[in-house]
Amino acid sequence: MEESVCRIEVESKTRSREELLTVSERIIADSGTESLFTHIDFEPLPSKSAVAEIIVKSRDLLFPGYFSREKVDPSNFRYYLGQKASELYDLLADQITRHIRHECLRHDLPCQHCEEQGQRQALTFLESVPELRRILNTDVQAAFNGDPAAKSQDEIIFSYPGLYAIMVYRIAHRLFHLSVPLLPRMLTEQAHSETGIDIHPGAHIQERFVIDHGTGVVIGETSEIGKNVRIYQGVTLGALSLPRDSAPRLRGRKRHPSIEDAVIIYAGATILGGETVIGARSVIGGNVWLTDSVPPDSKVLLKPPELIYK
Amino acid sequence: MEESVCRIEVESKTRSREELLTVSERIIADSGTESLFTHIDFEPLPSKSAVAEIIVKSRDLLFPGYFSREKVDPSNFRYYLGQKASELYDLLADQITRHIRHECLRHDLPCQHCEEQGQRQALTFLESVPELRRILNTDVQAAFNGDPAAKSQDEIIFSYPGLYAIMVYRIAHRLFHLSVPLLPRMLTEQAHSETGIDIHPGAHIQERFVIDHGTGVVIGETSEIGKNVRIYQGVTLGALSLPRDSAPRLRGRKRHPSIEDAVIIYAGATILGGETVIGARSVIGGNVWLTDSVPPDSKVLLKPPELIYK
Amino acid sequence: MEESVCRIEVESKTRSREELLTVSERIIADSGTESLFTHIDFEPLPSKSAVAEIIVKSRDLLFPGYFSREKVDPSNFRYYLGQKASELYDLLADQITRHIRHECLRHDLPCQHCEEQGQRQALTFLESVPELRRILNTDVQAAFNGDPAAKSQDEIIFSYPGLYAIMVYRIAHRLFHLSVPLLPRMLTEQAHSETGIDIHPGAHIQERFVIDHGTGVVIGETSEIGKNVRIYQGVTLGALSLPRDSAPRLRGRKRHPSIEDAVIIYAGATILGGETVIGARSVIGGNVWLTDSVPPDSKVLLKPPELIYK
Repeated sequence: MEESVCRIEVESKTRSREELLTVSERIIADSGTESLFTHIDFEPLPSKSAVAEIIVKSRDLLFPGYFSREKVDPSNFRYYLGQKASELYDLLADQITRHIRHECLRHDLPCQHCEEQGQRQALTFLESVPELRRILNTDVQAAFNGDPAAKSQDEIIFSYPGLYAIMVYRIAHRLFHLSVPLLPRMLTEQAHSETGIDIHPGAHIQERFVIDHGTGVVIGETSEIGKNVRIYQGVTLGALSLPRDSAPRLRGRKRHPSIEDAVIIYAGATILGGETVIGARSVIGGNVWLTDSVPPDSKVLLKPPELIYK
Repeated sequence: MEESVCRIEVESKTRSREELLTVSERIIADSGTESLFTHIDFEPLPSKSAVAEIIVKSRDLLFPGYFSREKVDPSNFRYYLGQKASELYDLLADQITRHIRHECLRHDLPCQHCEEQGQRQALTFLESVPELRRILNTDVQAAFNGDPAAKSQDEIIFSYPGLYAIMVYRIAHRLFHLSVPLLPRMLTEQAHSETGIDIHPGAHIQERFVIDHGTGVVIGETSEIGKNVRIYQGVTLGALSLPRDSAPRLRGRKRHPSIEDAVIIYAGATILGGETVIGARSVIGGNVWLTDSVPPDSKVLLKPPELIYK
Repeated sequence: MEESVCRIEVESKTRSREELLTVSERIIADSGTESLFTHIDFEPLPSKSAVAEIIVKSRDLLFPGYFSREKVDPSNFRYYLGQKASELYDLLADQITRHIRHECLRHDLPCQHCEEQGQRQALTFLESVPELRRILNTDVQAAFNGDPAAKSQDEIIFSYPGLYAIMVYRIAHRLFHLSVPLLPRMLTEQAHSETGIDIHPGAHIQERFVIDHGTGVVIGETSEIGKNVRIYQGVTLGALSLPRDSAPRLRGRKRHPSIEDAVIIYAGATILGGETVIGARSVIGGNVWLTDSVPPDSKVLLKPPELIYK
């Protein structure tokens, strides 16, 4: 009896394995189908895991010593930074090359100088590290000045998701500006995944930008944001609703609002449309819904909706 | 003096270690308490880290070549896919078996054929890979057609959280349908953690489904969604509020809305209740709150709440 | 020809490398600038990756056997728990010491007994493990009783983000209470990143607390929450809007609401202000916006805003 149970189990396992073969063959056959998305190609592909690495290595240069496993001290920081810069360069040059090559292949273009271009763009990016630092510095200062729960600026650098999302956006925006394909969006979506803050790399955002809490924030591709702006969780800077299937026509057009200097937008507010301008120093209250411009120094509040008390 | 400081430190360390022993004993003793949740058992448990692996391996089959570290090219893709199918089978068969066995043990049922059942269900899942691909293909197409910020379909596959959450939901829904316990919800909660999009594996969602941005989306267990539906961040398809402690009575009942074909639901809209039906081709505006059905071809907008300008 | 192309490529690569040197030097020089944030120091720093490890090891003690890769069975659980307690102690003692030392250095204080203090606080934390378990046990029970989609209590422990965020908050709150700097906020921000639920470690939250779905929840530093409270996704317990640059004055003041026992707050509700009290057993409806107190047993609903049907 024991033995026969054992035999049945072995038989069942063997049967499963045989069926697996058939199933696998069907999956393989199916992968040749033209209409499905596959990426079966001789060229190496952009790598999603490299995206996380690019963020880590960039952060090591932008906030030296904060996030490294190794100790960065006055005696070794020159080597440390030199080494990190070189690592980031190699990684970026390789990934940008792959992204460019991938675009060439998809559009049947000849891929000449793709590698050289990748190296050039990686270098140009590294050249902007001091400038990126300077602007991130203003973001940290602004976050600290406006948040009574912040105990120190280090706390903000170590743990605030808003600063993290802004850092990744500023990195991605630089690459977007250099016309690197795909990678910028992959970077900001990585930050979106980690923070719930969704900033399109194409948006223009100036210094001293603060996002508090941040979950649910959406900042669309053609948004423009001035200096010293502060926004809270759940704020959307979006497009007006689209007629069905109008997407191709609208690519590249300004569809998202402009926010002038020193504006504050409280949690859950929604501001829509490419011609909507929020004038400087305005305050937009929580949950406000705006599709029209407001002049500078406005204060816009929701008339509190009536409540029913029972 | 130096020496005595040193001795004090050593003494303090030793004392801490001794106290740690006492503390540990108390923690161990406490773990026997019946009323607390522990999982001290001879059977191996379902593993949370396996959940992430199942998603990665499934994605390797569903979008071959996009996310693999290895290069997948015309000369090796047959081996690559065969190998991946076999890996996924082994992992799934093992984990499903654990989940089934875990359920048997919790309910004091005899665990006969648990392993065979695990293998069978893993195989059935793999059989559905071509069908899953086909439906995900329609989701990618629909996302591209409706989004002016999308530069290419690859960008969507590589980086859109909405597509990722839908992919994981479709995998989980398949396993939910096979009555695999626990695992389906662990899968969708993994995606929820990565995307902020919370889809219960029990929901029914047809082809060409798009979620844009997505953070804060909640789709409840008994929701039904037709073809070609598009929703934005912060949309809730939820249950009406429950009388206290009515949960047990309501398990299994339809508590969430039905959305018919080609409906668009803009950001922040909330639709509640098991009898609520949104008729085909309707457009539901941002922040709308609905607990009643609307007929096909409706357009429902929030009457913009009054704003106070100061 | 072939050869000359090759030479050009090599030259271009060499040129890029040389330029990289210059760029690196500029980055290094820039890191000396006083006004920028760097952390170049001889003392080892608090480590962000240790934060995730602290959560994993604490969870292994709080829910023994649920999340371990190893099997925890009746024959080995004593060793397993003893070992885990010792690992968590070492990790915590080291990290707390670093956090304390970091604070001392930033404020130019002499760092005496930092290590001893770190060991003491780690031990005190471990002493509270049984108590933490007991309260988390009530949270699991409450989650199960109120959720018709929950199939078992294990499902909640394995996969509910609300429970995870509450667990991390309870760990962090304990450390916050011991006046450990930085680390508590890093812990809750790690959970925020994984769940979209942002609970400040300073908040006071009693037993049987439930957060369902959870994405977008914000619970501010000085919130007080009684027993048996249940909240849904997108609920904010926040501060009233601040006059510009008032942050320093407000540090430490009660700025967030108090929620009494057995209150339910539905999705998207916003409750603001340090003097706002929601009386016991009240029900606050979805999207309600409250800046005033309500008496016990209130039911507050939004008067549904008018909809426009076209």
